[in-house]
Amino acid sequence: MDVPGLSQTRIIEIERNILSRNAAFAAANRARLAEGDVLALNLMSSPGSGKTTLLVRAISDLIGRWPIAVIEGDQQTSNDAERIRATGAPAIQINTGKGCHLDAHMVAHALEALPLPRGGVLFIENVGNLVCPAAFDLGEAKKVVVLSVTEGEDKPIKYPDMFAAADLMLINKADLIPHLDFDLARTIEHARRVNPDIEALVVSARSGQGMPAFYAWLAREAKRAATRIQAAE
Amino acid sequence: MDVPGLSQTRIIEIERNILSRNAAFAAANRARLAEGDVLALNLMSSPGSGKTTLLVRAISDLIGRWPIAVIEGDQQTSNDAERIRATGAPAIQINTGKGCHLDAHMVAHALEALPLPRGGVLFIENVGNLVCPAAFDLGEAKKVVVLSVTEGEDKPIKYPDMFAAADLMLINKADLIPHLDFDLARTIEHARRVNPDIEALVVSARSGQGMPAFYAWLAREAKRAATRIQAAE
Repeated sequence: MDVPGLSQTRIIEIERNILSRNAAFAAANRARLAEGDVLALNLMSSPGSGKTTLLVRAISDLIGRWPIAVIEGDQQTSNDAERIRATGAPAIQINTGKGCHLDAHMVAHALEALPLPRGGVLFIENVGNLVCPAAFDLGEAKKVVVLSVTEGEDKPIKYPDMFAAADLMLINKADLIPHLDFDLARTIEHARRVNPDIEALVVSARSGQGMPAFYAWLAREAKRAATRIQAAE
Repeated sequence: MDVPGLSQTRIIEIERNILSRNAAFAAANRARLAEGDVLALNLMSSPGSGKTTLLVRAISDLIGRWPIAVIEGDQQTSNDAERIRATGAPAIQINTGKGCHLDAHMVAHALEALPLPRGGVLFIENVGNLVCPAAFDLGEAKKVVVLSVTEGEDKPIKYPDMFAAADLMLINKADLIPHLDFDLARTIEHARRVNPDIEALVVSARSGQGMPAFYAWLAREAKRAATRIQAAE
């Protein structure tokens, strides 16, 4: 970036300061979540990929099994938090205003207001954006990128930072595949080109197809997180 | 934004400097495009809304009628510029790297390399993002936001800056409406809530449905721009 009145050295220093300040808040969030034995997921995607619908279905299916809480990020409106609360799970809405992503400081404030889902799952739904959220650690255990089949096969290579950062890619709206020219194998191949370790699951939040595999992934990650906590004690 | 080592006053000053520097480049681009009698459109949307497919169809239909050139913005890859060049129209790809939007300085550089489509249309396809591009004037005559029907009805109120800035909303992928729970009237109502003057057209870049109405809009805007230029001379 070229900013009038600031040298390139000063800009790099400011960017480093922003990210190191974020890293400090993220580390504090991570410690607090580990102390509560909470598996925290940072869900990221384009606007309209179906993150909230996916969360509503997952929470409805899992709320009897685990404590669950949700942090919702959006530029404006508290629609998503209201949709989540209708499932019975507590949710806090963060409005970022002009901002294009959540940061760890915002999440720290939300954690002050939200009952910690001890031994359960915290879903953090980021602002719909395939660029900015990739750079900001929120203190989550895992990053999950949701890609709608309607978005096409090329998104992982056009927005590589996001797919390089993600642990799991949920390929959503699978019920629409029969109506599209969508190449699933090519999409996964593109994602693995930027991130050989990324896991991929095909789901439909609308029909429920593939959701049990996502729940099995959640159970595995929750167990791994708990094992790490016990090993550290 | 809270930045360590910078006062709030200094941050506001820097943001103002960035936007005023962008405004100076945008004004220069606008003068150059007006001098060449070029109608320039800034196309913005979420990733995967179908902007490039829409441009490929529009250019294929219109290339015999008007001179056309394209500036393509993406974080990475030159896939989109290659898809455009296959239609016969000249295209320049800008890769923004970590950046989440085009700015007027990038467009000024692209205009140096691109043959000016005198008396025709310049399409500028921004980075797929419903947040950041809304704040940056590129020197275009009109801003067009593309919304895929798969993204849902709430996007105009969740990302209000984008829909407030846009002159035209193209509601794309209309061929998928029979397979979705999509409320068209509600989508337009949401967009007009943040921008009472926004025009809306329903199109499918895949089937071609509604595209002639978009071409009529283009012809009207090109005529208006030419009339303004003649009046100013």
